[in-house]
Amino acid sequence: MKAVILAAGHGTRLGPLRRDVPKVLIRVAGRELLWRHLRLLSELGVEEFIIVVNAEGRGPIEEFLRGSGFKYRLVLNEAPEKGNGYSLYLARDHVEAPFLVVMGDHVYEEEFLREAIKGKGLIIDRTGRFVDKEEATKVKDEGGRVEEIGKGIEGTAFDTGFFVLDTEIFHHAQEVLEEKGRAEMSEIVRRARLEVTEVSGLLWMDVDTPEDARRATRVLVRRAVKEVGDGAVSRLFNRRVSLWISERAVNRLTPNQASILSSAVGLLAAFVALVSPAAAGLIYQLSSILDGVDGEIARASLRNSSFGGWMDSLLDRGVDFLFLLALGYTLEANPAFWGIIAAAIFGTIMVSYSTERYKAAYLLDIYQEIPAMRYLVGKRDERIFVTMCFCLGSKIAELFLLLAFWTNLRVLITVLLVWKKEKGKGS
Amino acid sequence: MKAVILAAGHGTRLGPLRRDVPKVLIRVAGRELLWRHLRLLSELGVEEFIIVVNAEGRGPIEEFLRGSGFKYRLVLNEAPEKGNGYSLYLARDHVEAPFLVVMGDHVYEEEFLREAIKGKGLIIDRTGRFVDKEEATKVKDEGGRVEEIGKGIEGTAFDTGFFVLDTEIFHHAQEVLEEKGRAEMSEIVRRARLEVTEVSGLLWMDVDTPEDARRATRVLVRRAVKEVGDGAVSRLFNRRVSLWISERAVNRLTPNQASILSSAVGLLAAFVALVSPAAAGLIYQLSSILDGVDGEIARASLRNSSFGGWMDSLLDRGVDFLFLLALGYTLEANPAFWGIIAAAIFGTIMVSYSTERYKAAYLLDIYQEIPAMRYLVGKRDERIFVTMCFCLGSKIAELFLLLAFWTNLRVLITVLLVWKKEKGKGS
Repeated sequence: MKAVILAAGHGTRLGPLRRDVPKVLIRVAGRELLWRHLRLLSELGVEEFIIVVNAEGRGPIEEFLRGSGFKYRLVLNEAPEKGNGYSLYLARDHVEAPFLVVMGDHVYEEEFLREAIKGKGLIIDRTGRFVDKEEATKVKDEGGRVEEIGKGIEGTAFDTGFFVLDTEIFHHAQEVLEEKGRAEMSEIVRRARLEVTEVSGLLWMDVDTPEDARRATRVLVRRAVKEVGDGAVSRLFNRRVSLWISERAVNRLTPNQASILSSAVGLLAAFVALVSPAAAGLIYQLSSILDGVDGEIARASLRNSSFGGWMDSLLDRGVDFLFLLALGYTLEANPAFWGIIAAAIFGTIMVSYSTERYKAAYLLDIYQEIPAMRYLVGKRDERIFVTMCFCLGSKIAELFLLLAFWTNLRVLITVLLVWKKEKGKGS
Repeated sequence: MKAVILAAGHGTRLGPLRRDVPKVLIRVAGRELLWRHLRLLSELGVEEFIIVVNAEGRGPIEEFLRGSGFKYRLVLNEAPEKGNGYSLYLARDHVEAPFLVVMGDHVYEEEFLREAIKGKGLIIDRTGRFVDKEEATKVKDEGGRVEEIGKGIEGTAFDTGFFVLDTEIFHHAQEVLEEKGRAEMSEIVRRARLEVTEVSGLLWMDVDTPEDARRATRVLVRRAVKEVGDGAVSRLFNRRVSLWISERAVNRLTPNQASILSSAVGLLAAFVALVSPAAAGLIYQLSSILDGVDGEIARASLRNSSFGGWMDSLLDRGVDFLFLLALGYTLEANPAFWGIIAAAIFGTIMVSYSTERYKAAYLLDIYQEIPAMRYLVGKRDERIFVTMCFCLGSKIAELFLLLAFWTNLRVLITVLLVWKKEKGKGS
């Protein structure tokens, strides 16, 4: 399947954000709009991209694509003032039905594209959940076809700027062009009385202004939160702060840099623990908040990787170990109590081991397979928050007793829950 | 696809092993021959089984199958003395082409069946690697068809007793029956000049005598060793002993019982460590050997499960922790040294965490993805063997120093190897 990306628009409204880059090279949540289209659509099976550009954008876009690994063809629109329908028309010799048409200046999330690609005609959204309803292009559909389309009309849905078309569309485009000397997509769609397919409630937005770009970044970061596996402290507190940070950092920091930062703060907490457990507790909690940032940035900027997730887990275990060890030293404990400290360290690692090893065995996420696991307290965000509280209250020995009991009990309950599920399967 | 299982033979040669069970209910490596066929073939997509039985076997086989969950139909052969070709003929109304025919008294490993099922006609093996070449039925093939078949002939291959047939075979069967009043499969095959498909070198055996059953058990257990991830101590020593045990235990012990036994011996080692590190080291090494038995038994008896693997990993970590903790107590160490003990415990868990977490992230086995990992010393069998040596030499403090360094270094090298592979991917 091929996709036509319409990228010949002038984007005068982007103002200062645009500087001298074409609109499709604007970065939203750490990635250029064009790169998002290419990456997400090629993952969904699109093999070649026909990118219609204007004379001004051609150079920068060509340079951007060079060595990108995507298979593409640039088509020059020397008269972009003739409208985006003319851009589509110029792609006519390079596609076979069915093909996709995407507005280059839109941003779509993966789930939207996965649904949209299965549709036919114009993809419409009845909710307009993420768009400025005043500014958006409305569609009035009847009997599965477009009746009316435009900004000023009373619509029944919104035009998402995503199309699954066959080559007949070019006849309609030609007609409009011959009549008017120019053609907008909406005119062609109206003339063709195009079929519509509804994909509602998922993220798509057009990026017309700097404010749009900021809002798209914010929404993408928020939708990048992988909630499964989050403890109560994350849900109620950490995520609010980490999202605030991620929205601001996603255009500046790579996920790896965020991981290293979070681990560095965790290491700092371990060192400080030798001197001041109270201060260390606060820093440890800060590192726990930062621990959410790398994942949020990674997913929002489509940079999430197996390696990133793996490395992050190993670093977390290392930080937890060193923090608890340092805290243990401050106790000047007798040998008997070192058994408790060791049990707290062991249990802390095993909470993660038991859930990750589940995934290695079953190739499934334990929190999705066994919903009760979500309410089982003892996840990292919860442990660190409690650790901070005990550190602030100078109750270090009590903390180790609690952790030794709590973490190992959690592993035991995990075993019981998995065992119960296995029993259930058998019958 | 349907499969016909020929289970009407009398199996007089099985003697004492047989007692009053039909031949196909003989257990080999912990599982009945019939159950093996049903389980393995249904996993490969066979939906219904036509099982041809004699009057004597009908009752026990029916009872065995009741509630088994497999879809089956029993066909009674009231004259089994007419040969197994007559048994096949009796199944004629219950199958459509293509269908499988399996000798009920044979044992096949999964890999053999996976290949054989893709073939056509008689599946032949040119190596006869696992069979008594004197006793086996030989095949002489030419131009992809059977020329001659029988025990006494000069063959170019062996008859594996596995067939992929179409309904034309029943005409040939009928001809032979009309001529001779009886029909062996080999006669029908010869008459049909059946096509042959070669599947060589994989495990298939016929089970005719008690000695055959013992040998099949031994071979199945040996082929159940999952070598990837085994350290040098396992390969050179532990496996030899554990296989010896598994061959004898597979008909008596379930994998779970073997897991519990191994963990119980490990726990015993931890308790004994408080009194005599030397004795504890030996018991710990024994538990390490036993740790191989559950997996061997599970795979040989087709009982391996995600839960079993998961539980076994958790128990191993628990045993390692308790053993090292107990050993640590014997040192009456100062607080500074408890840091070393804790690091040894942490690193010991992390060796497994780093490799299992890799599987959770990549859904691939690290030892298969990164072959260098196989030569990275520090796997559990190696650590336990070294631990035993230091315990026997009463060098406990030295052991902890070594483990703290060795295990954490191994995790670090794992990170470097994975990182190097990631780098390689990018370029």
